[in-house]
Amino acid sequence: MSAGKVIALSGGVGGAKLVLGLSYVLPPEQLMVVTNTGDDFDHFGLRICPDTDTVLYTLANLADKSKGWGRVDETWTFMEVMKSLGGEDWFNLGDGDLALHILRTQGLAQGKTLTEVTAQVSKAWGVHVEVIPMCDQSVATIVETENGPLAFQHYFVRDRCEPVAKGFTFNGIEDAVANPIAVDAITHSAEAIIITPSNPFVSVDPILKVPGMRSALQASKAPVIAVSPIVGGVAIKGPAAKMMAELGIPTSALEVARHYQGLIDAMVIDEVDEHLVPEIQDLGVKVCVTQTVMNDLHDRIKLAKDVLALSEFMQNGGRQ
Amino acid sequence: MSAGKVIALSGGVGGAKLVLGLSYVLPPEQLMVVTNTGDDFDHFGLRICPDTDTVLYTLANLADKSKGWGRVDETWTFMEVMKSLGGEDWFNLGDGDLALHILRTQGLAQGKTLTEVTAQVSKAWGVHVEVIPMCDQSVATIVETENGPLAFQHYFVRDRCEPVAKGFTFNGIEDAVANPIAVDAITHSAEAIIITPSNPFVSVDPILKVPGMRSALQASKAPVIAVSPIVGGVAIKGPAAKMMAELGIPTSALEVARHYQGLIDAMVIDEVDEHLVPEIQDLGVKVCVTQTVMNDLHDRIKLAKDVLALSEFMQNGGRQ
Repeated sequence: MSAGKVIALSGGVGGAKLVLGLSYVLPPEQLMVVTNTGDDFDHFGLRICPDTDTVLYTLANLADKSKGWGRVDETWTFMEVMKSLGGEDWFNLGDGDLALHILRTQGLAQGKTLTEVTAQVSKAWGVHVEVIPMCDQSVATIVETENGPLAFQHYFVRDRCEPVAKGFTFNGIEDAVANPIAVDAITHSAEAIIITPSNPFVSVDPILKVPGMRSALQASKAPVIAVSPIVGGVAIKGPAAKMMAELGIPTSALEVARHYQGLIDAMVIDEVDEHLVPEIQDLGVKVCVTQTVMNDLHDRIKLAKDVLALSEFMQNGGRQ
Repeated sequence: MSAGKVIALSGGVGGAKLVLGLSYVLPPEQLMVVTNTGDDFDHFGLRICPDTDTVLYTLANLADKSKGWGRVDETWTFMEVMKSLGGEDWFNLGDGDLALHILRTQGLAQGKTLTEVTAQVSKAWGVHVEVIPMCDQSVATIVETENGPLAFQHYFVRDRCEPVAKGFTFNGIEDAVANPIAVDAITHSAEAIIITPSNPFVSVDPILKVPGMRSALQASKAPVIAVSPIVGGVAIKGPAAKMMAELGIPTSALEVARHYQGLIDAMVIDEVDEHLVPEIQDLGVKVCVTQTVMNDLHDRIKLAKDVLALSEFMQNGGRQ
């Protein structure tokens, strides 16, 4: 394997699982994670970056493995007292998690970029993999619903993804700039670009749509490989399948391939979806079939190895 | 006893003890506490009001009785994680305590006054006594030390009162305005003004020096009664005696009386200081001798009753 960088585009939980697998297989300097910041929002005056934080907690081995979000050994005194004060209680903020948000908010107020604050946190926690927010400007994912537009966390957490989605808007994205560190790596030192099995609409699309990102990906010589978050017609976690259904799109890995068509060179789908191979190949997309559901660390590492093997195969000009 | 208000000027722990005693003796609508805000500061981008909070926690029966500050049943996960992030760790912020600071910071950012936020917290926690910050503007107590000026919490907490104090400055006080609610009560409905046994230099003086406060107190018909924080030449808690020694003032309740001379009508001193009565009386200050050390709730209530009895005696034009 060459010494180029593997660049993973990641949302929260699903993406972080594959990123963790990759971190076990690759030396840290060879892995870069570009995180979705469209979910970021201000709550209680604090800047909260759920996807970036999930990746950081996962790579720092601080993630709560049972919940899939937040910190291990978390306590919840802040929320109890905030409730007693009549404050908003729809978004759970753990006591330790607050330290991250407060440090970040303070750093941003002092003029640091989100990239700088993220690097500071990584360094403090011994995360040697580069974790790079997709941009340093504020982008806010809005879910257009039958009840009107909803800020993403209102849709996702407060309203539990119940409103019917009609589309997505990324407020502020036209004024954002793809993170230069990510663009530089994609342009000059990428060996593979991996679109992790995060939600295509609200986790990956914001990354792809931040100005400068898609063109960098398309110009890169590295293969772009997506791992389908849809397995057997359902989403492993989160509202991806529900959103597809509401948007009138069949809930199938084939439609994920169509969604990324023109950008991806190859796709990893689950064994249960093997029958979709011909149709995906007809889109001009190479396909690797393997077990993609990541129940434990072994699965994460196994999938990471499969994705990297596909990448090597692609770099060698191979055909399946 | 008439139905006028008893107005207590209070710093942190010592003041809050007497305030608690008063709250057991008086109906809530008859007690107002004016708190020192000179100790207030910004930390991690949050507005922290130590004296006001100690009074609120005490009256809400949420105070940690063993430490004398902070919340009961507190957890400390935030501090642990903040330390892991390399953040400042000299000021301990409990997880539940953070809720108060975050709610307040958010309220102030939304344009609420400190008085309004304090009232909101009081209401949420069932504190029916009016707790009024001395002013809504920012005043910062600076301890002038041999090593240069120190922000109060740096002196008090970070440096553990170790630097030698040479004087005190209250930054911003010239632009502050005595809380109109307090001034109105002092002017129109006060039955007694009680200077609680808080530190005269850094807890009570900021209250007295906020423009409009001293003149209101002097114009009030209600007797002004101070309780000495110096007992037998030492301070019950905190650096009051150390400060007096460093300023070249004998550490004695007599000097506390001199400090407040011209403002107070009467003073409560401890039994161990009974020999000081003639000299204090020579200052034109009535004296009540009683047990002033408040080790338990019984002591707090007993001292509150003694102070109120003295107040009634003064209102009746009595002489000792």
